[in-house]
Amino acid sequence: MKSFDIHAIDEIIHGRLRLGIMAYLIGAGSADFNTLKQHLETTDGNLSVHLRKLEDARYVSIEKSFKDRKPRTEVRLTDEGRKAFISYLDSLTKLISQ
Amino acid sequence: MKSFDIHAIDEIIHGRLRLGIMAYLIGAGSADFNTLKQHLETTDGNLSVHLRKLEDARYVSIEKSFKDRKPRTEVRLTDEGRKAFISYLDSLTKLISQ
Repeated sequence: MKSFDIHAIDEIIHGRLRLGIMAYLIGAGSADFNTLKQHLETTDGNLSVHLRKLEDARYVSIEKSFKDRKPRTEVRLTDEGRKAFISYLDSLTKLISQ
Repeated sequence: MKSFDIHAIDEIIHGRLRLGIMAYLIGAGSADFNTLKQHLETTDGNLSVHLRKLEDARYVSIEKSFKDRKPRTEVRLTDEGRKAFISYLDSLTKLISQ
């Protein structure tokens, strides 16, 4: 039997920037685009790409609106995202505590 | 001040297969190529590529020899690799426990 499964680690979450996004959202629940950009010290383009990946996996939902006539992008962790993140942490813990 | 530094996560270790290699070696100290290949369920080519990256970073040392006329490749965690892995775990823990 194999006790050691790196394939159990969810690559969608494991990417460093996406991991940063998920780790932020697991605490905050939701955040706007600029807050995330600032926290993760990244660019608009890079953040957009990785948010799209998380959205495609249904780990986050993204809602665009206007506030004081300015566009606003709100990113929210979904229930599925929360479960996936917990499962990711579980796999990671198993891997590194062998 | 920023409490959230994804850039502190060592990308050399963070790659899933390399993380699997490092996690195995932190426990075992050393392993031969075939043992690693079996544990990580990967191919010769893939394992070689990632071992080379870890060797270039001086996180592992690789020694080729013959045993019973068969080539044998021994992979050993270096002191530097051990320190880097501990530091990686530390950064990861900080990131996910915000």
